[in-house]
Amino acid sequence: MQAEIVLSPIGRVHVTADGYRLEIDEAYRSALMGLDGFSVVNVLWWAHLADSEEARALRTCDQPYRNAPNELGVFATRSPVRPNPIALTAAPVLQIDVARGTIDVAFIDADEGTPILDIKPYHPAIDRVRDVAVPAWCAAWP
Amino acid sequence: MQAEIVLSPIGRVHVTADGYRLEIDEAYRSALMGLDGFSVVNVLWWAHLADSEEARALRTCDQPYRNAPNELGVFATRSPVRPNPIALTAAPVLQIDVARGTIDVAFIDADEGTPILDIKPYHPAIDRVRDVAVPAWCAAWP
Repeated sequence: MQAEIVLSPIGRVHVTADGYRLEIDEAYRSALMGLDGFSVVNVLWWAHLADSEEARALRTCDQPYRNAPNELGVFATRSPVRPNPIALTAAPVLQIDVARGTIDVAFIDADEGTPILDIKPYHPAIDRVRDVAVPAWCAAWP
Repeated sequence: MQAEIVLSPIGRVHVTADGYRLEIDEAYRSALMGLDGFSVVNVLWWAHLADSEEARALRTCDQPYRNAPNELGVFATRSPVRPNPIALTAAPVLQIDVARGTIDVAFIDADEGTPILDIKPYHPAIDRVRDVAVPAWCAAWP
Protein backbone atom coordinates (compact mmCIF):
# COMPACT_ATOMS: atom_id res chain seq x y z
CA MET A 1 0.00 0.00 0.00
CA GLN A 2 1.20 3.50 -0.75
CA ALA A 3 2.34 5.43 2.29
CA GLU A 4 1.20 8.78 0.98
CA ILE A 5 -1.67 10.23 -0.95
CA VAL A 6 -1.08 13.08 -3.36
CA LEU A 7 -3.95 15.45 -4.08
CA SER A 8 -4.35 18.28 -6.56
CA PRO A 9 -6.59 21.31 -6.04
CA ILE A 10 -9.75 21.36 -8.14
CA GLY A 11 -10.32 25.09 -7.70
CA ARG A 12 -9.94 28.05 -5.38
CA VAL A 13 -11.95 30.06 -2.88
CA HIS A 14 -12.46 33.71 -3.82
CA VAL A 15 -13.37 36.11 -1.07
CA THR A 16 -14.51 39.51 -2.29
CA ALA A 17 -16.56 42.41 -1.04
CA ASP A 18 -19.52 40.75 -2.74
CA GLY A 19 -19.14 37.49 -0.89
CA TYR A 20 -17.69 34.03 -1.17
CA ARG A 21 -17.26 32.22 -4.47
CA LEU A 22 -15.87 28.75 -5.13
CA GLU A 23 -14.25 28.74 -8.55
CA ILE A 24 -13.80 25.28 -9.98
CA ASP A 25 -11.06 24.79 -12.56
CA GLU A 26 -12.23 24.18 -16.10
CA ALA A 27 -10.96 20.60 -16.12
CA TYR A 28 -13.32 19.70 -13.25
CA ARG A 29 -16.46 21.67 -14.10
CA SER A 30 -18.40 18.81 -15.66
CA ALA A 31 -18.17 17.06 -12.27
CA LEU A 32 -20.62 19.67 -10.94
CA MET A 33 -23.47 18.34 -13.08
CA GLY A 34 -26.50 17.71 -10.88
CA LEU A 35 -25.12 19.50 -7.83
CA ASP A 36 -27.47 22.42 -8.30
CA GLY A 37 -30.35 20.76 -6.46
CA PHE A 38 -28.45 20.73 -3.17
CA SER A 39 -28.73 23.74 -0.88
CA VAL A 40 -25.59 22.94 1.13
CA VAL A 41 -22.24 21.55 0.01
CA ASN A 42 -19.42 20.06 2.03
CA VAL A 43 -16.23 21.76 0.95
CA LEU A 44 -12.90 20.09 1.68
CA TRP A 45 -10.15 22.66 1.44
CA TRP A 46 -6.45 22.73 1.98
CA ALA A 47 -5.51 25.04 4.85
CA HIS A 48 -2.41 26.05 2.91
CA LEU A 49 -1.68 29.18 4.93
CA ALA A 50 -1.38 27.12 8.10
CA ASP A 51 0.58 24.32 6.46
CA SER A 52 4.21 23.77 7.38
CA GLU A 53 6.40 20.97 8.60
CA GLU A 54 6.22 22.43 12.12
CA ALA A 55 2.43 22.75 12.03
CA ARG A 56 2.01 19.15 10.88
CA ALA A 57 4.22 17.96 13.72
CA LEU A 58 2.03 19.51 16.43
CA ARG A 59 -0.12 17.07 18.39
CA THR A 60 -1.63 19.40 21.01
CA CYS A 61 -2.35 23.08 21.26
CA ASP A 62 -2.66 25.49 24.17
CA GLN A 63 -6.28 26.40 24.90
CA PRO A 64 -7.36 27.05 21.32
CA TYR A 65 -10.83 28.19 22.41
CA ARG A 66 -12.07 30.22 25.35
CA ASN A 67 -12.94 27.88 28.23
CA ALA A 68 -11.25 24.96 26.51
CA PRO A 69 -8.81 22.80 28.48
CA ASN A 70 -5.31 24.22 28.78
CA GLU A 71 -4.03 21.52 26.49
CA LEU A 72 -6.11 19.95 23.77
CA GLY A 73 -5.19 17.39 21.13
CA VAL A 74 -5.45 18.74 17.59
CA PHE A 75 -7.93 16.00 16.65
CA ALA A 76 -10.25 17.48 19.31
CA THR A 77 -10.15 20.86 17.56
CA ARG A 78 -11.16 22.27 14.19
CA SER A 79 -7.86 24.12 13.95
CA PRO A 80 -6.19 24.13 10.51
CA VAL A 81 -3.02 23.15 12.36
CA ARG A 82 -3.06 19.35 12.19
CA PRO A 83 -1.09 16.47 10.67
CA ASN A 84 -3.09 16.58 7.44
CA PRO A 85 -4.30 20.18 7.09
CA ILE A 86 -7.64 19.57 5.42
CA ALA A 87 -10.58 21.66 6.57
CA LEU A 88 -14.26 20.89 6.20
CA THR A 89 -17.00 23.47 5.82
CA ALA A 90 -20.70 22.86 5.25
CA ALA A 91 -21.38 25.89 3.07
CA PRO A 92 -24.90 27.13 2.26
CA VAL A 93 -25.27 27.48 -1.51
CA LEU A 94 -26.59 30.72 -2.96
CA GLN A 95 -26.13 29.93 -6.64
CA ILE A 96 -24.40 27.33 -8.77
CA ASP A 97 -23.33 27.92 -12.36
CA VAL A 98 -22.16 24.57 -13.66
CA ALA A 99 -21.03 25.93 -17.04
CA ARG A 100 -18.87 28.67 -15.50
CA GLY A 101 -17.77 26.46 -12.62
CA THR A 102 -18.84 28.80 -9.86
CA ILE A 103 -20.59 28.10 -6.60
CA ASP A 104 -21.56 31.20 -4.63
CA VAL A 105 -21.88 30.35 -0.95
CA ALA A 106 -23.21 32.32 1.99
CA PHE A 107 -20.02 31.72 3.96
CA ILE A 108 -16.83 29.75 4.09
CA ASP A 109 -14.15 30.18 6.75
CA ALA A 110 -11.32 30.08 4.22
CA ASP A 111 -9.06 32.84 2.98
CA GLU A 112 -8.81 34.28 -0.52
CA GLY A 113 -7.03 31.87 -2.84
CA THR A 114 -7.47 28.78 -0.68
CA PRO A 115 -7.15 25.58 -2.73
CA ILE A 116 -10.32 23.47 -2.87
CA LEU A 117 -9.83 19.70 -2.80
CA ASP A 118 -13.34 18.33 -3.02
CA ILE A 119 -17.01 19.25 -3.17
CA LYS A 120 -19.63 16.85 -1.83
CA PRO A 121 -23.37 17.27 -1.55
CA TYR A 122 -24.50 17.74 2.05
CA HIS A 123 -27.23 15.21 2.68
CA PRO A 124 -29.22 15.10 5.93
CA ALA A 125 -29.21 11.29 5.86
CA ILE A 126 -25.42 11.27 5.92
CA ASP A 127 -24.26 14.52 7.49
CA ARG A 128 -26.95 15.72 9.85
CA VAL A 129 -26.74 13.87 13.16
CA ARG A 130 -29.70 14.45 15.43
CA ASP A 131 -28.34 13.64 18.86
CA VAL A 132 -24.83 14.88 19.46
CA ALA A 133 -22.98 15.30 22.74
CA VAL A 134 -20.05 17.69 23.05
CA PRO A 135 -17.85 18.64 26.02
CA ALA A 136 -19.05 21.40 28.33
CA TRP A 137 -16.39 23.84 27.13
CA CYS A 138 -17.90 24.06 23.65
CA ALA A 139 -21.53 23.31 24.46
CA ALA A 140 -22.52 26.97 24.16
CA TRP A 141 -21.10 27.54 20.69
CA PRO A 142 -23.72 29.34 18.63
CA MET B 1 1.88 28.13 -4.31
CA GLN B 2 2.42 24.39 -4.35
CA ALA B 3 0.38 22.57 -6.97
CA GLU B 4 -0.06 19.44 -4.90
CA ILE B 5 -0.67 18.49 -1.31
CA VAL B 6 0.88 15.34 0.09
CA LEU B 7 -0.85 13.61 3.00
CA SER B 8 0.17 10.70 5.20
CA PRO B 9 -2.29 8.33 6.89
CA ILE B 10 -2.61 8.77 10.66
CA GLY B 11 -4.15 5.34 11.21
CA ARG B 12 -6.36 2.65 9.75
CA VAL B 13 -9.94 1.43 9.92
CA HIS B 14 -10.37 -2.06 11.29
CA VAL B 15 -13.56 -3.89 10.50
CA THR B 16 -14.09 -7.05 12.51
CA ALA B 17 -16.95 -9.27 13.57
CA ASP B 18 -17.06 -7.17 16.75
CA GLY B 19 -17.51 -3.90 14.93
CA TYR B 20 -15.62 -0.91 13.63
CA ARG B 21 -12.43 0.38 15.21
CA LEU B 22 -10.30 3.36 14.20
CA GLU B 23 -6.71 2.62 15.14
CA ILE B 24 -4.55 5.71 15.34
CA ASP B 25 -0.81 5.27 14.83
CA GLU B 26 1.30 5.75 17.92
CA ALA B 27 2.92 8.92 16.59
CA TYR B 28 -0.49 10.65 16.46
CA ARG B 29 -2.19 9.35 19.61
CA SER B 30 -1.54 12.40 21.77
CA ALA B 31 -3.57 14.41 19.25
CA LEU B 32 -6.68 12.58 20.55
CA MET B 33 -6.46 14.30 23.95
CA GLY B 34 -9.84 15.84 24.78
CA LEU B 35 -11.73 14.12 21.98
CA ASP B 36 -13.48 11.76 24.38
CA GLY B 37 -16.22 14.26 25.22
CA PHE B 38 -17.59 14.20 21.67
CA SER B 39 -20.19 11.59 20.75
CA VAL B 40 -19.63 11.87 17.00
CA VAL B 41 -16.44 12.33 15.00
CA ASN B 42 -15.93 13.35 11.40
CA VAL B 43 -13.55 10.86 9.84
CA LEU B 44 -11.73 11.79 6.65
CA TRP B 45 -10.45 8.65 4.99
CA TRP B 46 -8.65 7.81 1.83
CA ALA B 47 -10.80 5.68 -0.47
CA HIS B 48 -7.68 3.78 -1.47
CA LEU B 49 -9.48 0.79 -3.00
CA ALA B 50 -11.23 3.07 -5.47
CA ASP B 51 -8.16 5.15 -6.22
CA SER B 52 -6.54 4.94 -9.64
CA GLU B 53 -5.51 7.29 -12.39
CA GLU B 54 -8.63 6.30 -14.33
CA ALA B 55 -10.92 6.84 -11.35
CA ARG B 56 -9.49 10.30 -10.69
CA ALA B 57 -10.04 11.25 -14.32
CA LEU B 58 -13.78 10.54 -14.20
CA ARG B 59 -16.03 13.59 -14.09
CA THR B 60 -19.46 11.98 -14.34
CA CYS B 61 -20.93 8.60 -13.55
CA ASP B 62 -23.89 6.65 -14.92
CA GLN B 63 -26.84 6.68 -12.53
CA PRO B 64 -24.91 5.91 -9.34
CA TYR B 65 -28.11 5.72 -7.27
CA ARG B 66 -31.56 4.35 -7.98
CA ASN B 67 -33.76 7.12 -9.40
CA ALA B 68 -30.76 9.38 -9.92
CA PRO B 69 -30.29 11.14 -13.27
CA ASN B 70 -28.72 8.99 -15.97
CA GLU B 71 -25.58 11.07 -15.77
CA LEU B 72 -24.40 12.78 -12.62
CA GLY B 73 -21.26 14.75 -11.92
CA VAL B 74 -19.03 13.11 -9.33
CA PHE B 75 -19.19 16.25 -7.12
CA ALA B 76 -22.95 15.62 -6.89
CA THR B 77 -22.33 12.14 -5.50
CA ARG B 78 -20.69 10.64 -2.42
CA SER B 79 -18.92 8.07 -4.57
CA PRO B 80 -15.30 7.32 -3.66
CA VAL B 81 -14.56 7.73 -7.36
CA ARG B 82 -13.61 11.41 -7.62
CA PRO B 83 -10.59 13.57 -8.49
CA ASN B 84 -9.36 13.56 -4.88
CA PRO B 85 -10.65 10.33 -3.33
CA ILE B 86 -11.26 11.50 0.21
CA ALA B 87 -14.39 10.27 1.93
CA LEU B 88 -16.16 11.82 4.88
CA THR B 89 -18.13 9.90 7.50
CA ALA B 90 -19.79 11.28 10.62
CA ALA B 91 -19.24 8.26 12.86
CA PRO B 92 -21.02 7.78 16.20
CA VAL B 93 -18.47 7.12 18.92
CA LEU B 94 -18.89 4.12 21.20
CA GLN B 95 -15.64 4.39 23.11
CA ILE B 96 -12.36 6.28 22.89
CA ASP B 97 -9.11 5.06 24.40
CA VAL B 98 -6.63 7.90 24.00
CA ALA B 99 -3.69 5.95 25.42
CA ARG B 100 -4.20 2.99 23.08
CA GLY B 101 -5.22 5.19 20.18
CA THR B 102 -8.49 3.46 19.49
CA ILE B 103 -11.89 4.88 18.67
CA ASP B 104 -14.68 2.34 18.48
CA VAL B 105 -17.48 3.63 16.29
CA ALA B 106 -20.98 2.35 15.64
CA PHE B 107 -20.43 2.42 11.90
CA ILE B 108 -18.14 3.62 9.16
CA ASP B 109 -18.64 2.87 5.47
CA ALA B 110 -14.98 2.04 4.90
CA ASP B 111 -13.28 -1.27 4.27
CA GLU B 112 -10.80 -3.10 6.46
CA GLY B 113 -7.40 -1.43 6.33
CA THR B 114 -8.61 1.89 4.95
CA PRO B 115 -6.13 4.70 5.68
CA ILE B 116 -7.46 7.44 7.95
CA LEU B 117 -6.36 10.98 7.13
CA ASP B 118 -8.00 13.09 9.81
CA ILE B 119 -10.32 13.01 12.79
CA LYS B 120 -12.38 16.08 13.68
CA PRO B 121 -14.96 16.55 16.40
CA TYR B 122 -18.49 16.74 15.01
CA HIS B 123 -20.04 19.89 16.42
CA PRO B 124 -23.69 20.81 15.84
CA ALA B 125 -22.76 24.49 15.48
CA ILE B 126 -20.51 23.64 12.54
CA ASP B 127 -21.75 20.41 11.00
CA ARG B 128 -25.44 20.11 11.67
CA VAL B 129 -27.43 22.20 9.21
CA ARG B 130 -31.08 22.57 10.07
CA ASP B 131 -32.68 23.42 6.76
CA VAL B 132 -31.31 21.48 3.84
CA ALA B 133 -32.78 21.00 0.38
CA VAL B 134 -31.80 18.06 -1.79
CA PRO B 135 -32.96 16.97 -5.26
CA ALA B 136 -36.05 14.81 -5.52
CA TRP B 137 -34.08 11.72 -6.53
CA CYS B 138 -32.40 11.47 -3.13
CA ALA B 139 -35.04 13.12 -0.95
CA ALA B 140 -36.25 9.77 0.39
CA TRP B 141 -32.87 8.52 1.58
CA PRO B 142 -33.28 7.14 5.10
